[in-house]
Amino acid sequence: MFLADVIGTVVSPVQHPILETETLLLLRPVTPDGSPTGRTRVGLDRAEAGVGDRVLVIDEGNSSRQILGSKGKDAPVKTIVVGVVDYVELGHELCYDHRTREPIGPRQEASR
Amino acid sequence: MFLADVIGTVVSPVQHPILETETLLLLRPVTPDGSPTGRTRVGLDRAEAGVGDRVLVIDEGNSSRQILGSKGKDAPVKTIVVGVVDYVELGHELCYDHRTREPIGPRQEASR
Amino acid sequence: MFLADVIGTVVSPVQHPILETETLLLLRPVTPDGSPTGRTRVGLDRAEAGVGDRVLVIDEGNSSRQILGSKGKDAPVKTIVVGVVDYVELGHELCYDHRTREPIGPRQEASR
Amino acid sequence: MFLADVIGTVVSPVQHPILETETLLLLRPVTPDGSPTGRTRVGLDRAEAGVGDRVLVIDEGNSSRQILGSKGKDAPVKTIVVGVVDYVELGHELCYDHRTREPIGPRQEASR
Amino acid sequence: MFLADVIGTVVSPVQHPILETETLLLLRPVTPDGSPTGRTRVGLDRAEAGVGDRVLVIDEGNSSRQILGSKGKDAPVKTIVVGVVDYVELGHELCYDHRTREPIGPRQEASR
Repeated sequence: MFLADVIGTVVSPVQHPILETETLLLLRPVTPDGSPTGRTRVGLDRAEAGVGDRVLVIDEGNSSRQILGSKGKDAPVKTIVVGVVDYVELGHELCYDHRTREPIGPRQEASR
Repeated sequence: MFLADVIGTVVSPVQHPILETETLLLLRPVTPDGSPTGRTRVGLDRAEAGVGDRVLVIDEGNSSRQILGSKGKDAPVKTIVVGVVDYVELGHELCYDHRTREPIGPRQEASR
Repeated sequence: MFLADVIGTVVSPVQHPILETETLLLLRPVTPDGSPTGRTRVGLDRAEAGVGDRVLVIDEGNSSRQILGSKGKDAPVKTIVVGVVDYVELGHELCYDHRTREPIGPRQEASR
Repeated sequence: MFLADVIGTVVSPVQHPILETETLLLLRPVTPDGSPTGRTRVGLDRAEAGVGDRVLVIDEGNSSRQILGSKGKDAPVKTIVVGVVDYVELGHELCYDHRTREPIGPRQEASR
Repeated sequence: MFLADVIGTVVSPVQHPILETETLLLLRPVTPDGSPTGRTRVGLDRAEAGVGDRVLVIDEGNSSRQILGSKGKDAPVKTIVVGVVDYVELGHELCYDHRTREPIGPRQEASR
C-alpha cells in the first residue's frame, strides 16, 4: 500500500462492463511529508475521494478484487483507493492533517 | 492501471495458440500531460486502439485473464489495452482531449 | 521480502471492515547497513513493531493473505510486517544489532 | 510483456525437478529500437531462441505457468521467452527486422 | 528470475510458524558479469547456498509457494534461492565459473 494525492480524473470508454460507470482517478504517489515520488497511476475510487485528497492506495490484482465484492470477480482492475487519509505521523510528530491540507492546483503537478 | 501512447507494433510467431492472431502493440507509458515515463511495454489490444492513441493499460496477469474471457484461461498475457482515453483532467482543468491530439511520429519516441 | 525501518503511522478511515482496527505503519526500506533505499510504503503490523524498529516486510497480495488467517480471505492488504529484526550479518560480521540501534527522529527521514 | 535480446546462458543445478533439463537464458530488456533498458533477467525458453535473437518475454508467475502446460503446475518459474521477434514497427516504419539483425558480441553487453 | 550474490544473513523472530526455522539470506542482485544492480532482498534458502555463492533467485509469491511443497500452503514467502550458479556465459564466452569465484568480503557491499 502507498500514499498518493488525487490530482485529476481520466475519461475512457473502457471495453469492460464493470468499469463503465467507474470514476478513474489520477493518483500521484507521495512521500510521508507530501513530496511527489514515482509515476502517476490511474485507479478506481472506493473511498469517495476527490481532487486534492491524500489517499491510501492498493496496487495489486488479487487484493483489489476482494474489495469489489461480487462485481470484482470479473474486474480487470489493479489500483484502488481504499481510504482518505486523516493523519500521518513521522516518528511521533504529526506531519499531515487532512483538515489543514493545502489545495492542489492543476498545473503544478502536471509534469511529475 | 496507467496511461500510455500506442507507438508501434510487434510481429512475432508467438509459441502459444491464443496469441497467434493477436495484435501486439508497443505501449509507451506517459504522465497525465503526455510526457514519456518508464519503459515501453508490449501489450494486447482490447480497445481497437491504433498508433497515436492514448490508452488505459492494465499490467497484471490475473486481471488480464479476466478480460480475455474463456480464451483467457490459457493465455500467457500480462499487459492489456482496455480503453482509448477521451479526456484527462488535472485538478479540474482539461489537459488531454482525444479529438485534438497531435499525431505521433515514428522517429521521435524511438529512444525513450 | 525486504528490510525496512518503521518511521511513523498513518490514520485513515479505510473503507473495508478488516482494516478498520489495524495499525498502519510507515515503512522505509533500508539496505543491510541501514541506508534508506526506495520509496516508503504503508503496511500492516503482525510483529508488534513500533517506531524505530528495523523489520522484515513482505510485499505481495497472496502471501500477505496467508498470514492474516481467516480474516485474510477478504483483506485488501499487500504489505505486512512479519518480524522485528534482531541481527543482520554482512559476510560473517555483525552490521546490525537490535539492542544497540540508534533512535530514529521524526524529521530526518521525512523527505526520503 | 517486453522485448529483450538473448545475450547468454546460465548453468545451475536448480533444486527443483522441472527446471533440471531447462535452458536458462540471459535476457537483456531493450527499447523498441534496440537500446538496453533495465536489468538483465534469467528466463526459460519456449521459442527455440538462441544468443543474438530479439524475443518477446513474459515476466509473471501465473501467466508463466499457463504456458508450461501440465508440467507447469509445480514450476517455480516466472520469466519465459514466448516468441522470437520478426518485425518491430515504430509508428508505421520498420525499426527492426529479424533477417538483418546485427550479431551480438559477448563482451559489449557485459556491464549493462 | 535473476542472479544474485549471497552477502549475509538476517536473524528475526518472524511471527509465522513456517519461517521460524528458516535461514534468511541477504541477496544482492548482480548483472551477468557480477556488478551489483538493484536493491538487496531477503530470501529463503532452497539450494544450500552460503555467503559468497552466486545464486538463481525467484521473486514471486505464487511460484515461491510451489517450491515449498506442503509447508508452502501457509507460507508468507516471496523470495527464494533455487540454485547455486555453476557457469554464466555471455554470448558464447564463459564470464562466471563457480570454482574460481572471488571470495566476497563483508564491508565492501555494505552500502550497495
